[in-house]
Amino acid sequence: MSESPFTLYYHWLSPACRFVMAVMSEYGIPYQKVLEKTWERRKKFYQINPAGTVPVLVSAKGDVFVEWYAIIEALHDTPQAGSLLPLSVRDKAEVRRLIFWFMTSCDRDVTDYLLQEKVFKRFLRDNTPNASALRAGLTNLRTHLGYIDFLMERRHWLAGDQLSLADFAAGAHVSCMDYLGHVPWQDFNDAKDWYTRLKSRPSFRCILEDTVPSVPPVSSYAALDF
Amino acid sequence: MSESPFTLYYHWLSPACRFVMAVMSEYGIPYQKVLEKTWERRKKFYQINPAGTVPVLVSAKGDVFVEWYAIIEALHDTPQAGSLLPLSVRDKAEVRRLIFWFMTSCDRDVTDYLLQEKVFKRFLRDNTPNASALRAGLTNLRTHLGYIDFLMERRHWLAGDQLSLADFAAGAHVSCMDYLGHVPWQDFNDAKDWYTRLKSRPSFRCILEDTVPSVPPVSSYAALDF
Repeated sequence: MSESPFTLYYHWLSPACRFVMAVMSEYGIPYQKVLEKTWERRKKFYQINPAGTVPVLVSAKGDVFVEWYAIIEALHDTPQAGSLLPLSVRDKAEVRRLIFWFMTSCDRDVTDYLLQEKVFKRFLRDNTPNASALRAGLTNLRTHLGYIDFLMERRHWLAGDQLSLADFAAGAHVSCMDYLGHVPWQDFNDAKDWYTRLKSRPSFRCILEDTVPSVPPVSSYAALDF
Repeated sequence: MSESPFTLYYHWLSPACRFVMAVMSEYGIPYQKVLEKTWERRKKFYQINPAGTVPVLVSAKGDVFVEWYAIIEALHDTPQAGSLLPLSVRDKAEVRRLIFWFMTSCDRDVTDYLLQEKVFKRFLRDNTPNASALRAGLTNLRTHLGYIDFLMERRHWLAGDQLSLADFAAGAHVSCMDYLGHVPWQDFNDAKDWYTRLKSRPSFRCILEDTVPSVPPVSSYAALDF
């Protein structure tokens, strides 16, 4: 058994899991990963999280943190945390606004459509992607990339001058779309520059190494020159 | 002009707005409300929140807090806050797990279906409720009430012995369903007892007073004996 203080239940290509993994890596908080195939509805896992969803983080003491909201906020009670959440009330609010934007509206309008249709349907033995869901996801993806572009014309990182939790929340989503080869980088130069900088951080490696056995990423996925 | 330190942009029957309003009332933090009809896509409002959603809280200094996540967490940086978020890491995690449960899965599976079909479609001049969306919402509502019942057999309040943010998050959703007369209280006694206790708090009055001009609540809505 590893002696990591934390166990993270996750599954592949989950933006919320990727967000948590990258933030824990950036903070240098060690954790061991346990792959939880949530669609198999494992009874023991439902005892930990009755919603049956990931990410779930369990501490060595047995404290349970369900979903990114409880996990990310709890990390700020650990001594390692801090640098990704600014101190001023105004800056903190901007970071949380952007986390919420990506973890809810980008998730609902883009990532969820594309991941369901292109990846998770096969685990449910349903292989017929819904064309209108795919189209909606791809159209909405351009809106979100456009918003990253817009912010990047004004700021060095998404929420301001400093790298923050918001960059990892957005990067978690963009990385899933990039895995599937869906990001039209040529049309979003500033977003591409931002993603290149994020991707080159050692903490982002855990995201680039998160692959689905039967669905390999496009060839440029882990490249820094893409 | 009121001298309230905060302005809250809200609209009727929004669970997220109700959650914020009740928590601010419980903490005794004064605010003035501004009704924002988000479906009218008012330009000036998009300058405050580019997502065009409510709740949005603006402080006297001009700091902007978008959506319940940024608002609720920011309230804990004010001197009045504290009593609704426990101190221990484990208890805090349980409160946030339940907030997330109600604000995302209950919202997606129940409240959003029923409010869209029964209320908001009329503001978009579309008066044909989708029967299968209504059915799904009503079926899922029983699951959520059942979960409240299950917790209430074991605890005094949703997250444990103490009243917490989780009760207001759940109450915000239940109150919207109750407004429309959709809660089968006779089948969920423990949930009913919990809701009666919550409803009788002075801080819950702001929720009971939140009415839509053209869609009055059912007659038992504000009654403590229902």
